[in-house]
Amino acid sequence: MKIFCTQENLNQGLNIVSHLASKSTTLPILDNVLVKTEGGTIELSSTNLEMGISCQIRGKIEKPGKITVPAKLFADYVSLLPNEKISIEESDKKIYIKCTDQETTIQGMSAEDYPLLPSLEKKNKIQLNVEELKEAIRETIFAAAYDETRPEISGVLMKIREKEIRLVATDSYRLAEKVIKIEKKQDLETETILPTKTLQELIRILSISTVENLEVYLAENQALFCLDEIEIISRAIEGSYPDYQQIIPKEYKTRIIANKEDLIKTIKTTSLFARSGVNDINIKIRPNQKEMVVSAVNAQLGENVSRLEAVTEGEENEIVFNYRYLLDGLQNITSEKVVLEIINNTNPGVIRPEEKVDYLYIIMPIKQ
Amino acid sequence: MKIFCTQENLNQGLNIVSHLASKSTTLPILDNVLVKTEGGTIELSSTNLEMGISCQIRGKIEKPGKITVPAKLFADYVSLLPNEKISIEESDKKIYIKCTDQETTIQGMSAEDYPLLPSLEKKNKIQLNVEELKEAIRETIFAAAYDETRPEISGVLMKIREKEIRLVATDSYRLAEKVIKIEKKQDLETETILPTKTLQELIRILSISTVENLEVYLAENQALFCLDEIEIISRAIEGSYPDYQQIIPKEYKTRIIANKEDLIKTIKTTSLFARSGVNDINIKIRPNQKEMVVSAVNAQLGENVSRLEAVTEGEENEIVFNYRYLLDGLQNITSEKVVLEIINNTNPGVIRPEEKVDYLYIIMPIKQ
Repeated sequence: MKIFCTQENLNQGLNIVSHLASKSTTLPILDNVLVKTEGGTIELSSTNLEMGISCQIRGKIEKPGKITVPAKLFADYVSLLPNEKISIEESDKKIYIKCTDQETTIQGMSAEDYPLLPSLEKKNKIQLNVEELKEAIRETIFAAAYDETRPEISGVLMKIREKEIRLVATDSYRLAEKVIKIEKKQDLETETILPTKTLQELIRILSISTVENLEVYLAENQALFCLDEIEIISRAIEGSYPDYQQIIPKEYKTRIIANKEDLIKTIKTTSLFARSGVNDINIKIRPNQKEMVVSAVNAQLGENVSRLEAVTEGEENEIVFNYRYLLDGLQNITSEKVVLEIINNTNPGVIRPEEKVDYLYIIMPIKQ
Repeated sequence: MKIFCTQENLNQGLNIVSHLASKSTTLPILDNVLVKTEGGTIELSSTNLEMGISCQIRGKIEKPGKITVPAKLFADYVSLLPNEKISIEESDKKIYIKCTDQETTIQGMSAEDYPLLPSLEKKNKIQLNVEELKEAIRETIFAAAYDETRPEISGVLMKIREKEIRLVATDSYRLAEKVIKIEKKQDLETETILPTKTLQELIRILSISTVENLEVYLAENQALFCLDEIEIISRAIEGSYPDYQQIIPKEYKTRIIANKEDLIKTIKTTSLFARSGVNDINIKIRPNQKEMVVSAVNAQLGENVSRLEAVTEGEENEIVFNYRYLLDGLQNITSEKVVLEIINNTNPGVIRPEEKVDYLYIIMPIKQ
């Protein structure tokens, strides 16, 4: 193999694919990126066996071939080169790199031993806006279960119904749901549970790329995301997602609308006095006084009572939440004002942006 | 005790003193800050027994007294309050804090049990510019010995001679020396070795404070730094600092002047191929070709040769350095161009800024 390309193109390609490769420790060859020149293009790719990323870069192929190269070293090295022409030649499982005043040899491994990336047929295309998808993933992913004792909730559900995709995540203490509208009505109803690692990697790549729209293909056991010259493919988590709709409260007894930043600050202040491990703060809503009172008592440290003015509606009410779950939800809402709806201290509370109906966050109370 | 002050003043004072207090785990009371109202002023202070920080804040004293309060909780809490008037009342080892819509109780500990801060007589005052001292500490502190097997080189030497202070640090592999001019000739010759922790805390406080000049008092076993309402006192490290002057080379055989950023980039690139743990890179200087050639060979990874144009003088020469020590020194030089002087591969190399004579960095070669 012998190829030529610019430092800029190679650097960008390695930025896309090398991050995933650097993370694996099971099979040494998974620390490498695959460089190959099939079909007249230069392609870089990496896989951790759960997902695969490939990226085509522009350049000239003098002699076709393929090899795998240690991802981190290759990416770090190329990132430090000046933006000039680079020549890369492969011979005897080594690559020889030349760029201006630099000459380098890197020890590689045979491409024959590199695992094949899975593939998915491109049918039932869904076109999405990159920013919208990134936001939707960020607004839900944090609520997914951290450990994998219940694998089906350790990922994010992507559920297609007609003209929308719903992203849902829950760890059974709280749940986040975001709806994205899509233009073309989908005939197929699919439910795909994607690992959080895949979505984190997807967000990282969407943030580097300058592309505005991407194509998404979802099947029950796989998902494919295409951004121009980049393709990200991932296996899905097996299992059925819990029927979460039934726990979303259909009504409320008390409702407040508060400034989001003020509410976050109040909760942070009171949270300093929450009991460690329990993280409990008490919220009283007093419609007559048009205020909410947030308080916490800690026998070792002391106690705090904070009052916050709010638009209130319904009856006087009281509920205890884990303040971390509250803050997680509030910090992912982008509107200036937020709505909190509660029934009593045994039913979940609902948080949503004041003006949008596309996002919902539910928290279970701490029963006392 | 009952006092009133603004959130801004209290927050700034806690910012200064609480950081030190939060670091101690030996004596529980050292996690606290001392609040006291002696002599008509409100004073906050903290100590870790090695150093002490005190800060006076403006406010109104309704009833004098003193108490100690958990530093981190107090500082975190006050930082979240709005910038309004705060009232603080002490009773039965608790403090009661009121501010707008907030009421808080924090459990404290008796001030009687708090260790006394050491004190130093304010004589032989040296006035220094805050920015200059901060820069001088940053340019030397990184070279101090990391472990404390030789305590006398685990700190930074501050040496006063007539109209200058010299800051020196070494770990016996490299040495940094910075000279600060002072206006008033000092009669006393002192040498004070200050712990790196003290200087890190000093840099932190100098960076928060808006004061331009500070007063420094140095004695053999103590040092005092005064910035308006803030005082920082520290014990010095016992022992005599090694006679480092004798290892500073008086001559050179080969000298180059290179652009600092280019040199850093070249060293970083080659360093990717240095042997792990040894960190060795080879530098060849070829005056005839007006270049330096930096190279590294690693049996596992591969190898690299990089060329860099430079102004060269003297004979052809070669030396092997630990690239980390080289980068440490170069990254602390503020000038655009740097000078590297070497004799051979058994004598230390010298790095300095091209135009200034106030800074010197020496590195021992790796003998082969």
